[in-house]
Amino acid sequence: MMKPLIILKIGGNVIDNQQILEAVLRDFAAWENPKILVHGGGKIASKLMEKLGITPKMVEGRRITDRETLDVVTMVYAGLINKNMVAALQSHSCNAIGLTGADANLLPAVKRPVKEIDYGFAGDLNPANISADMLTRLVNAGLVPVVAPITHDGAGTLLNTNADTIASCVAIALAKKFQVQLVFCFEKKGVLRDPDDEYSVIELLNEALFRQYQNDGTITAGMIPKLDNAFAALHSGVAEVRICSPENLTAGTRITR
Amino acid sequence: MMKPLIILKIGGNVIDNQQILEAVLRDFAAWENPKILVHGGGKIASKLMEKLGITPKMVEGRRITDRETLDVVTMVYAGLINKNMVAALQSHSCNAIGLTGADANLLPAVKRPVKEIDYGFAGDLNPANISADMLTRLVNAGLVPVVAPITHDGAGTLLNTNADTIASCVAIALAKKFQVQLVFCFEKKGVLRDPDDEYSVIELLNEALFRQYQNDGTITAGMIPKLDNAFAALHSGVAEVRICSPENLTAGTRITR
Repeated sequence: MMKPLIILKIGGNVIDNQQILEAVLRDFAAWENPKILVHGGGKIASKLMEKLGITPKMVEGRRITDRETLDVVTMVYAGLINKNMVAALQSHSCNAIGLTGADANLLPAVKRPVKEIDYGFAGDLNPANISADMLTRLVNAGLVPVVAPITHDGAGTLLNTNADTIASCVAIALAKKFQVQLVFCFEKKGVLRDPDDEYSVIELLNEALFRQYQNDGTITAGMIPKLDNAFAALHSGVAEVRICSPENLTAGTRITR
Repeated sequence: MMKPLIILKIGGNVIDNQQILEAVLRDFAAWENPKILVHGGGKIASKLMEKLGITPKMVEGRRITDRETLDVVTMVYAGLINKNMVAALQSHSCNAIGLTGADANLLPAVKRPVKEIDYGFAGDLNPANISADMLTRLVNAGLVPVVAPITHDGAGTLLNTNADTIASCVAIALAKKFQVQLVFCFEKKGVLRDPDDEYSVIELLNEALFRQYQNDGTITAGMIPKLDNAFAALHSGVAEVRICSPENLTAGTRITR
């Protein structure tokens, strides 16, 4: 029987609200180890870019990470957000260690190949390349990795990487060593039967039910890629995926195969 | 016989010159483990503050770390500088891990008490409080800590801390576990007999010689606090202190008791 490990992913909806963030960090700190926190970016980077007079680069509606943007997200995600989270967790007796994918070569990535769009310094991950041994060593030392959405190419360049992708890839990479529960904290209380009713949470979802809800229109467009990713993680060995809101990290929708 | 460990401290003179920085990181990467890099800040934070229209706060010629300044140095030191150094070291096959004193609670500090001057979010360190066991665990795992000049108070607040002090305190804290060589990389080739002659490096300095040079005026004001600190570290168990220039990390002035 493998030891359980929880990976919690929090995004902009949590990070941009100081009060919610504090509550989530306090709840996360109270969970038993081993655990890992993966965080996204939020609006602080955009606000800093605005103050610096840097115009966000967009191509066909997609955000491009040029050199200036990379420097800003490195400062904000790996510096300001990550280190303040670590300090907050430490104040709750959680032995957090803030890391990017460059640190300890945890998340070696590949600069996204240029096809129709050149995404600039955007990094793509492959779970097979993640340093699962080193991550395991850190969590076994009693540490709680807090991972910023920055990776590197191994040749000296940092890369901007989607935090959902990092959380899923880390979960898959660690599934050989732990019984991994991957928790996505997002805007709603879970996957909803009725998008207008916060209390219509589907408590348990498996693949058969998902297909059924998809066919009868219960689960709609916005939710489908998230759930496709959840099932992909489950098929790659992750024990359970959960989608919940910051108000209650232990509730929400449990997703199993 | 304890294992040797080198702690290299680099400051603004290295960080602000991309070419020198790259050369120093390449040389550092080539050293055998175990080793630790401690870095200072340089001018990037001041430049960013200027761009953001933040006026550096000074009281009686001393820099004050107010909340805005703390956020900027956290972004620049712990984010931009630290993570780019880690990525560069990784490209030279050096398994760097970028850390502040908040990470893994490595450097618990105390907010400087307000006497004549309120230094704001400035942190003072005591070598006795440093997590020497965790640092040892990290270096024994083959990792190379790269330490940014940011600590924390354990109650959720980050603190701006002098990098020379961090290097000395870490050296003293690890002196019980390793034979520590503490190397300060600075502007000159070492301690000079004649401040105008770069080639007048004093190759070996002990306390008796230091007092003699101090009395006959060979070693002057600017150098004395640095050397006082060096001898304090030696008296606290550090095996050797060296002062050198970025051009040659293996030369300079060797300081022993």
